[in-house]
Amino acid sequence: MAYERDNIRRLAAYVPGEQPQTQRVIKLNTNENPYPPHAAVLQAIRDVGPDALRRYPSPRAERFRDTAARVHDLDPSQVIATNGGDELLRLAFTAFCNPVAGGDASSAAGGAGVAEPSYSLYPVLAEIQDTPLVRLPLDAGFALPDDFAERLNAAGCRLALVVNPHAPSGRRESIDTLRRVAERFEGVLLIDEAYVDFAEADALPLLREGDLDNVLILRSLSKGYSLAGLRFGYGMGHAGLIAALDKARDSYNADVLSQAAAVAALEQRDAISATWQNVIAERDRLTTALRGEGWQVLDSHTNFILATPPSAGPDARTIYENLKAGGIFVRYFDQDRLRDKLRITVGTPEQNDALLAALVKVPTTTKSSAP
Amino acid sequence: MAYERDNIRRLAAYVPGEQPQTQRVIKLNTNENPYPPHAAVLQAIRDVGPDALRRYPSPRAERFRDTAARVHDLDPSQVIATNGGDELLRLAFTAFCNPVAGGDASSAAGGAGVAEPSYSLYPVLAEIQDTPLVRLPLDAGFALPDDFAERLNAAGCRLALVVNPHAPSGRRESIDTLRRVAERFEGVLLIDEAYVDFAEADALPLLREGDLDNVLILRSLSKGYSLAGLRFGYGMGHAGLIAALDKARDSYNADVLSQAAAVAALEQRDAISATWQNVIAERDRLTTALRGEGWQVLDSHTNFILATPPSAGPDARTIYENLKAGGIFVRYFDQDRLRDKLRITVGTPEQNDALLAALVKVPTTTKSSAP
Repeated sequence: MAYERDNIRRLAAYVPGEQPQTQRVIKLNTNENPYPPHAAVLQAIRDVGPDALRRYPSPRAERFRDTAARVHDLDPSQVIATNGGDELLRLAFTAFCNPVAGGDASSAAGGAGVAEPSYSLYPVLAEIQDTPLVRLPLDAGFALPDDFAERLNAAGCRLALVVNPHAPSGRRESIDTLRRVAERFEGVLLIDEAYVDFAEADALPLLREGDLDNVLILRSLSKGYSLAGLRFGYGMGHAGLIAALDKARDSYNADVLSQAAAVAALEQRDAISATWQNVIAERDRLTTALRGEGWQVLDSHTNFILATPPSAGPDARTIYENLKAGGIFVRYFDQDRLRDKLRITVGTPEQNDALLAALVKVPTTTKSSAP
Repeated sequence: MAYERDNIRRLAAYVPGEQPQTQRVIKLNTNENPYPPHAAVLQAIRDVGPDALRRYPSPRAERFRDTAARVHDLDPSQVIATNGGDELLRLAFTAFCNPVAGGDASSAAGGAGVAEPSYSLYPVLAEIQDTPLVRLPLDAGFALPDDFAERLNAAGCRLALVVNPHAPSGRRESIDTLRRVAERFEGVLLIDEAYVDFAEADALPLLREGDLDNVLILRSLSKGYSLAGLRFGYGMGHAGLIAALDKARDSYNADVLSQAAAVAALEQRDAISATWQNVIAERDRLTTALRGEGWQVLDSHTNFILATPPSAGPDARTIYENLKAGGIFVRYFDQDRLRDKLRITVGTPEQNDALLAALVKVPTTTKSSAP
């Protein structure tokens, strides 16, 4: 007998990128930072003693919120700590989007809106919440459509999710564009800044201008801080939005080890940003090198590039498969607008050299027989 | 402007027990284990290197699931790892209970059922999911009513939550009672075994009998394994139930440190169980001592006791406040059937001695003026 709800039964769960359990591969498929976490973070984890493990952690991660508020020039009431950025996304659906159950499933009222292609978790979270999802296409250059807010309003959306810098293209929207969307959109605009540490600017000024009560910014320690294993993210926004999310989260959502590590990470933000400069320099080198080989590569403001191989050679899927066979993992998306491209995480100089060498070796006479 | 859903706006969030941030108090209010975690657990945390922190963790906590399956004589497909037991509770509401939004709010169909008093998080989770909650009273001795399953079926409940051993009474239902409920109830029976490590028996035989596809058992490392700070729990049940919960959870819900610690903890289960015997011995000593002072104390199968002070002396709230002023925290619930009682976590012999000494010192001439 099936006990689960219809929306759960129908759901095709999110598929994470491959996580090969051997150390011998070059892993450029899930946008991890190639450099190790800062020594102060490792020390902070070691400093958590048996008594702290034995007790419940701070339910609201007070020390972390104070630290983040100081680093970002906000008030602690504008910060919420989450079990990875993914939890913040889920909480936004929980707090702001109405389930359709028993209602009119043909209407998008009360639901969420996204501009596609985008993070494939967004539609999964909408299905789990059983809320409608409006999917609007990005333009040919992966920019938001001019009438994004108006179309979301017309559909009755209560939440919009915009990843900026954008994944998987690496493109960055200007803060003026984001401000215009926030001013016009009648629901909550969640700006997913998972990759912002590799960009030149962020959306935080929108939180300091005072008149926007509907902007929520997501941050993650997974990429910039080399802590994907830790599961720690946070949200920043108007205190009213944070209070609503706070009610919806699990009572002790962040454990004592990750709270300690996250405080240490933010305190070392300036030192850690040196690795971001390394990644940016390598990203630009990789971009130039691939363009020199005839690839189309979009300008990226993240720690990955979206690259289209030359049409004269093997297609993207073939290259993906050949690289994988040789122990180099990149990401291939079998979906509209992406199946002729590869998303490649920027690695260390040595990893990037290996990638470039392997790409030159890819046989140029075969085409994948897959669709 | 309020952007949150009506159910979130209405919600009075869960209130965790007080967590004084000083080391100088005796903390007998949140059912933590007074003994430190096992050395192998601390070592496992230290052994997580920078590369493991840098990468995403195993999404489904494969090593932990294999370990738990081996320890409990189940298949790994019958196990799910969660960010504390609380996440398993939330996932059960998400996967099995329908929101009323747009539906008939006067019907309990599609909702959950509990026997009260019980864990105060259950109603909060029902409100967050915006699903109906049927609250049935436990009998005078805190036993489940005989017609529990029938009444839940009549109301159309899809999920029932039974904490066993029971909190806050410490009482234990027999496995025969639980089996009868599971056989008769048409939804999913979640048996919350957060305290089972201090009891003589658990409900796992129900999972091995094969004909019950609707039983889900919750475990937590918070109490038995002295790891409340770690946020690690797990669920066990029919593979079909586990698969439904697995779809609803965040993609990387358990971090790499807690996965490593949890594997080490379960591998040291036999050694760790020695602390459970210490707690049980102290629980029985505390029970006998308080009974000797005229208190009514229920027989407990957990790491806490529910105790009613003698009616001739100060009331429970006064005692709670006086203890707190003296640096000893116990739990007071200002609610029906509990406001004449204190829930006292069993501490170390020294902590329990201090508690007993303080209780003798409590002035006997004052009554609390609070309601």
